Amino acid sequence: MAIARLTDAERDAALDKLSGWTLRDDGLAITRSLKFSDFNEAFGFMTRVALHAEKADHHPEWFNVYNKVEITLTTHDAGGLSMRDVAMAEFIDSVV
Amino acid sequence: MAIARLTDAERDAALDKLSGWTLRDDGLAITRSLKFSDFNEAFGFMTRVALHAEKADHHPEWFNVYNKVEITLTTHDAGGLSMRDVAMAEFIDSVV
Repeated sequence: MAIARLTDAERDAALDKLSGWTLRDDGLAITRSLKFSDFNEAFGFMTRVALHAEKADHHPEWFNVYNKVEITLTTHDAGGLSMRDVAMAEFIDSVV
Repeated sequence: MAIARLTDAERDAALDKLSGWTLRDDGLAITRSLKFSDFNEAFGFMTRVALHAEKADHHPEWFNVYNKVEITLTTHDAGGLSMRDVAMAEFIDSVV
């Protein structure tokens, strides 16, 4: 099933409702940087997101070093942002 | 306790014994790129490394997207590579 790419208007409306997320320069992804108290908390967070991602079959691109996690969300099948990214961002916001 | 940075000779000897690891251009870190069959395997691997890292109190810098994991090992306290990185690389090699 094809996943629809958000229109610019849909994208902007979704971003307005998300906190802490930044549109990447090319407009095709959103990013958020998080800082935890230590690696235990950072990887604990990543594990919660990983379980959710696997269930949703939609996975983040992410970088971790010690207590920092940098996340990029995009939908390759849609060639940009889709509602899947918005849903994942909302899940992430709900657990940090 | 200060962690000793490897001499160039120690570093080269350690790298000779590791497979799949590349010395970063600045000589201060080693990197390895891994590809798994899917996210489940990639994150399962990351979880094994995370548990080991927490126990060893030595953590990787890493990037993951779906089935790919890119790992960088360095010892900030030593300003470059230390035996801790070699030990971590050996652990990683033992579980992939």
